Amino acid sequence: MARINESYRKLKAGYLFPEIGRRVAKFCAENPAAKVIRLGIGDVTEPLVPAIVEAWHKAVDEMAVRATFRGYGPEQGYDFLRQAIVANDFAPRGAEVEMDEVFISDGSKCDTGNILEIFGADNKVAISDPVYPVYVDTNVMAGHTGSADDAGRFAGLVYMPATAETGFVPPVPKEHVDLIYLCFPNNPTGAVARREQLAEWVEYARAHRAIILYDAAYEAYITDRQIPHSIFEIPGAREVAIEFRSFSKTAGFTGVRCAFTVVPKSLMGTTSAGENVALHALWNRRHTTKFNGISYPVQRAAEAVYSPTGKPQVRALVEFYLTNARLIREGLQDTGLKVYGGVNAPYVWLKTPGNESSWEFFDRLLTQAHLVGTPGSGFGAAGEGYFRLSAFNSRENVEEAVRRFRKVVG
Amino acid sequence: MARINESYRKLKAGYLFPEIGRRVAKFCAENPAAKVIRLGIGDVTEPLVPAIVEAWHKAVDEMAVRATFRGYGPEQGYDFLRQAIVANDFAPRGAEVEMDEVFISDGSKCDTGNILEIFGADNKVAISDPVYPVYVDTNVMAGHTGSADDAGRFAGLVYMPATAETGFVPPVPKEHVDLIYLCFPNNPTGAVARREQLAEWVEYARAHRAIILYDAAYEAYITDRQIPHSIFEIPGAREVAIEFRSFSKTAGFTGVRCAFTVVPKSLMGTTSAGENVALHALWNRRHTTKFNGISYPVQRAAEAVYSPTGKPQVRALVEFYLTNARLIREGLQDTGLKVYGGVNAPYVWLKTPGNESSWEFFDRLLTQAHLVGTPGSGFGAAGEGYFRLSAFNSRENVEEAVRRFRKVVG
Repeated sequence: MARINESYRKLKAGYLFPEIGRRVAKFCAENPAAKVIRLGIGDVTEPLVPAIVEAWHKAVDEMAVRATFRGYGPEQGYDFLRQAIVANDFAPRGAEVEMDEVFISDGSKCDTGNILEIFGADNKVAISDPVYPVYVDTNVMAGHTGSADDAGRFAGLVYMPATAETGFVPPVPKEHVDLIYLCFPNNPTGAVARREQLAEWVEYARAHRAIILYDAAYEAYITDRQIPHSIFEIPGAREVAIEFRSFSKTAGFTGVRCAFTVVPKSLMGTTSAGENVALHALWNRRHTTKFNGISYPVQRAAEAVYSPTGKPQVRALVEFYLTNARLIREGLQDTGLKVYGGVNAPYVWLKTPGNESSWEFFDRLLTQAHLVGTPGSGFGAAGEGYFRLSAFNSRENVEEAVRRFRKVVG
Repeated sequence: MARINESYRKLKAGYLFPEIGRRVAKFCAENPAAKVIRLGIGDVTEPLVPAIVEAWHKAVDEMAVRATFRGYGPEQGYDFLRQAIVANDFAPRGAEVEMDEVFISDGSKCDTGNILEIFGADNKVAISDPVYPVYVDTNVMAGHTGSADDAGRFAGLVYMPATAETGFVPPVPKEHVDLIYLCFPNNPTGAVARREQLAEWVEYARAHRAIILYDAAYEAYITDRQIPHSIFEIPGAREVAIEFRSFSKTAGFTGVRCAFTVVPKSLMGTTSAGENVALHALWNRRHTTKFNGISYPVQRAAEAVYSPTGKPQVRALVEFYLTNARLIREGLQDTGLKVYGGVNAPYVWLKTPGNESSWEFFDRLLTQAHLVGTPGSGFGAAGEGYFRLSAFNSRENVEEAVRRFRKVVG
């Protein structure tokens, strides 16, 4: 009688994006002539840049010749990529990160889920609301929660409302928590945290010996020079934070698969006996035992993100999506809707008109304008009455989407 | 005070292969002129075959053009690859596997570790001894065991000795167990299970409502036509087994990263209340929530394993390593050593001379012959006094290795 992990039964029926997919598929089947524009799921649409394509081809060719063929690589990733990351993403910003603190992986979704394995089951976990659903679901699956209430809030988690009043940056909690998920630039709200706000979080974490799980997957979209790209730009963060990064949105790698996680060697967790244990050693053990590194040619492709030819090409890609975000934001602002984000992030977050629920607005936008967005309530109870539009699409589609949107709402 | 997962502290200090790496690095540093031949870690050495290289390049080119660019793919893998797998690996052998029962992943190491997440913590887990260390370590990390004794056996696991007397196929246990790890062709012993032996296991699992976690990563090396390649060739297995497959050894993908897991929809686990739950749904939830699929071009490269041009090329690669295995086996047999495996597997398993321990023999072979193998005791207490040699190397190195080996042992 093999027993299942019964925590899975607490999960809500469908992960957000499959449910959107189901509704869109149904609509398209019933309206085959409709030209649906998707600004829902945050998936890139533009091709890989030439420097990345070239590096990838070159590495595939290496795999075709015995002298340059590579089998198992280091589970943590090749040094050439880890070095390029430190030299480009951290050192220039004064963020102290050592090469062997960088763990290459196949995605931030995997990393933010798997990181829980090195922690005990008795930590108090805090998440923003609204939030990227994976943080919640992986905690439920790991048995860290009770059941969900009608609004979808799981017992045992500490929900930190991220509201318009605080610019969608949750204030530090009044109570004690042990693990804190923060994501800036934020998915879904597009909000960013200012340096002093992050410093408050680091201070809280140091006082409570808590650990911040900092998701910076969208850092490439920061346009405001005052905004930190890494939590490690904040003094003292090396003792309280793990950072997740991804090439998915930075370089259009959603179908390529490459990300990384930074675990400082100075970061400690504790045992029940009060002993300090380096989390770096635990994550290294997890990574080497349950993972075998990512495809060598993909690591070469990722390295090209930092090459002299690759850098401006990738930058242009990000600028392209940022212009889309600006067009959406500006196009929606004079409809009278409250519009957030879209400046330092590829997401625009808006308040639905009147008292429409997120899913009501989703259905209306789909049926009346043939537009797909993401219902804010799918990101948590505090997202009810909000809606997310993604800037990941062609310019033509974005312009057409704004026109259609204004017809329905304006 | 973020608490760590204290189960990690029960793990033995080093995973086997890093320890080997450490000793070899030390020897090489002290003996820079020594030409060390590595038959230790089971890593392929020959380049990718042309059909795979061509398919990979073609898919990278698709990613360079907007019309053919692909972002997020299905987390479970693209249908083209899942279909090719069913049509080539299962259907021709009469093994009933449906396309959506195949989950593409980045490696069997990941899958065999991650699969534990969908099971409860209170299952009785049985493993062969000797065994692939990942099965043990991932159970320890998941908190399914007590501490290890001096021989390295963890309390709470059921160890099933795989001895020479039974051809290194463990007999079904007399006691009740819930989860059973089986690996055939076996790593490390090179043993295979005959149809009637697998049928006994399926019968046991059906009687006990146990689940077999069947690792068939080396099935491509089976030369004996009577030996099943898949557990699903055994009637009734669809109700009791999950199968793990990999392209690592089949097509030289250790640095490419592609594998898959088959979870039949008819496979059930139970809740504490005795309710049956389909494990397929749980694994699908795990896969979609904590994983984002593998690189699209890698999936196209894997598809080429089954193409009319790819098939014979990949077959020749396997034959090459099998010839290596034969040369090692035959070269060692008349030294008086007891030699196993190397016929249906890329591993040769041998009894160390005299009363030498596995690590003593490892050190002697390294220092006297500059050969690296894998100590049998690294695979479990019952592997003490045994030694594994891998066939993954160039023909030249294999021939030289056999000559050196015979000088030390003969």
